[in-house]
Amino acid sequence: MDYRGLFEDAIDTLRREKRYRVFADLERIAGHFPKAIYRDSADNEREITIWCSNDYLGMGQHQKVISAMQETAGKLGTGAGGTRNIAGTNRPLVELERSLADLHRKEAALVFTSGFVSNEASISTIARLIPNCLVISDQLNHASMIAGVKQSGMEKKIFRHNDMKHLREILEAAGKDRPKMIVFESVYSMDGDVAPIEEIADLADEFNALTYIDEVHAVGMYGPRGAGICERDGLMQRIDIIEGTMAKAFGVMGGYITASQPIVDAVRSYASEFIFTTALPPALCAAAHASIEHLKSSTVEREGQQRQAQRAKEILGAAGLPVMPTNTHIVPVIVGDARRCKAASDMLMDKHNIYIQPINYPTVPKDTERLRITPTPLHTDEMLFELRDALVSVWKNLDLPMNIDTSQLTAQALNSGDLVLPTTGG
Amino acid sequence: MDYRGLFEDAIDTLRREKRYRVFADLERIAGHFPKAIYRDSADNEREITIWCSNDYLGMGQHQKVISAMQETAGKLGTGAGGTRNIAGTNRPLVELERSLADLHRKEAALVFTSGFVSNEASISTIARLIPNCLVISDQLNHASMIAGVKQSGMEKKIFRHNDMKHLREILEAAGKDRPKMIVFESVYSMDGDVAPIEEIADLADEFNALTYIDEVHAVGMYGPRGAGICERDGLMQRIDIIEGTMAKAFGVMGGYITASQPIVDAVRSYASEFIFTTALPPALCAAAHASIEHLKSSTVEREGQQRQAQRAKEILGAAGLPVMPTNTHIVPVIVGDARRCKAASDMLMDKHNIYIQPINYPTVPKDTERLRITPTPLHTDEMLFELRDALVSVWKNLDLPMNIDTSQLTAQALNSGDLVLPTTGG
Repeated sequence: MDYRGLFEDAIDTLRREKRYRVFADLERIAGHFPKAIYRDSADNEREITIWCSNDYLGMGQHQKVISAMQETAGKLGTGAGGTRNIAGTNRPLVELERSLADLHRKEAALVFTSGFVSNEASISTIARLIPNCLVISDQLNHASMIAGVKQSGMEKKIFRHNDMKHLREILEAAGKDRPKMIVFESVYSMDGDVAPIEEIADLADEFNALTYIDEVHAVGMYGPRGAGICERDGLMQRIDIIEGTMAKAFGVMGGYITASQPIVDAVRSYASEFIFTTALPPALCAAAHASIEHLKSSTVEREGQQRQAQRAKEILGAAGLPVMPTNTHIVPVIVGDARRCKAASDMLMDKHNIYIQPINYPTVPKDTERLRITPTPLHTDEMLFELRDALVSVWKNLDLPMNIDTSQLTAQALNSGDLVLPTTGG
Repeated sequence: MDYRGLFEDAIDTLRREKRYRVFADLERIAGHFPKAIYRDSADNEREITIWCSNDYLGMGQHQKVISAMQETAGKLGTGAGGTRNIAGTNRPLVELERSLADLHRKEAALVFTSGFVSNEASISTIARLIPNCLVISDQLNHASMIAGVKQSGMEKKIFRHNDMKHLREILEAAGKDRPKMIVFESVYSMDGDVAPIEEIADLADEFNALTYIDEVHAVGMYGPRGAGICERDGLMQRIDIIEGTMAKAFGVMGGYITASQPIVDAVRSYASEFIFTTALPPALCAAAHASIEHLKSSTVEREGQQRQAQRAKEILGAAGLPVMPTNTHIVPVIVGDARRCKAASDMLMDKHNIYIQPINYPTVPKDTERLRITPTPLHTDEMLFELRDALVSVWKNLDLPMNIDTSQLTAQALNSGDLVLPTTGG
């Protein structure tokens, strides 16, 4: 039996389709964010600028956050030592969950080791505990949410991305009496667009549906205390379950849900992925807690991010680069071809010491491949001009489309498959 | 729609069945392992001794490991900043994976955020990439392995726990030509027994099956370099995929697999849980790396653990407590009733400042409920005598079975459902 050959073939398939991924070996430099040491395959080192990090506010290098991790490691040690039930529930974790419940003004919170697990475990467990539950899910939901819906084993319906007419049709067909849960995101991370949360909440009320929102690309960054888009728009109490992460704007690691006490207690008690996983280490919990508490009162990071994201859109757009119009901190620049997207990323690293990984299928639809840029408050104007010059040079070198009508590059158009982009510059 | 009521009912069911879990709020004290501060529901504090930690060697409080976490947090920050593909592959993580591959003498290793995810993602991905794969799984495999088998969507067969005759029957029925993967553990954590690994490897060779072993309760603790039972018995090269954890004997967090380059690369490239999860923070990777490297050469921790586990079995056994006979570091003491198992655990905490959480159904079969004791090299003889006196007092107080024939308390007997234990002492 040639098992080895089977796996080699599976890898070859990805290479042929230009989807084989090579991870960049990066060593970030605390105090010099967004700079890092990059090592190539021959272990040669050089300093580069990261433009695609999900450490959106640079909090992973904030002195308060680093000190909290170091001090707690010194006092309590490095690991939790067990699952939540087997000696793993540590004091900083208890305090972190209280801080998260407070952040979202919910009765309770539950921490997981990742956002993926928090979605998979929570969506599947909640849906399973509701007899005959219909799960209604946005077409562009994250892989972890799709995994949760699938794992629940319950019937599901997909509504077209952010399409309220379609959502209403599905709700009407299901009727008011059938139990339902609407599952969606606030900020969609690849397109940078935002869900019509109030309309979804209105529809949920009208049709007696539970609501589950993923705010991982919004927590820390929107709202007066950094609780996300729901907080910014005064909608936190209208959504039943808010899911978030400590691994992006909060700069550490781990996912969570906040909700009513019975929902959180049910997930805590029934979700296999939660029950049988070692608890998050105390030092990580303390670091995340410090970051969350800092961002509840400090707004300078959020303001700086919004300012630099806006500057990036203006500067790159003015240079003729095909920037998708977004209302968020995410700045996608469209390439529209897998091979050339990878080539653009490689050229930025090799010639310009700039790291932006290519976003290819299946993360985004074919022919909408892109570079996804995430400016932070610590990216200076000078860095922005360097980025612009590097991108323009790469775009010309690879003959990529420039000076096109970017108003057509909406999330809806790109995901419908109807939009035909020019394949070369002009 | 009374959604809240549905979740309250789900919780009430657990309370009725005496399966509702209350997590102990613990603050471990670095340098004073296995001591910790316990806070009760009224936030009253007292110092207790933990006897059920999976930080089996106390490495979570080893100065080398703590320093590695602190120094790396200071240099690189607290988080990885993205998925492995999106700027998250950090230098300490690259070095950790090399160290793990070296530990198990395999071509490559891949790190996940937990052992649960490593099993779920790896088993499901590997099985799915083998056309018509039959997954053959031990009856007592961990929940995460069952999740992986289920998620693969492939046909599965369950063999009776460690029963080689039954395994052979299943292999014969499948025939030599059908692709197969045998999935099992080395040390089964609730019973403390060990799989007949060599016999399984022989059968796998005879019938052309892949082999996947979970060594999470063995890595760090067995073998000349702490690579687990396969290393101890000279069998590492006979098993295709070895899965382990950094969250137990290595004292930190995260899971991993080691295997041939094509298998690891295929899981890396196809496993959704891996692709869409933020990478492990550099400080955690550095801490785990320091712990693994330390235990590759230092044997004093392993020897101390084996000595104190043996002492525990002797001392508790001599006092008439129903200790399951095991060949490992795990010391299960049988209660045989959910309500009284919880009562025994509560009484140990309330009256004796000793923490051992109850192990009830579904973690173990009904009527085999138990206290699971894990002596470490840092539990002194004095602590062992305190534990013995406390257990004897609790056993008498609750009229639990003592002085029974413990040779009957084998994993096979307890899991067959045939064994009837006395329900009271005498």
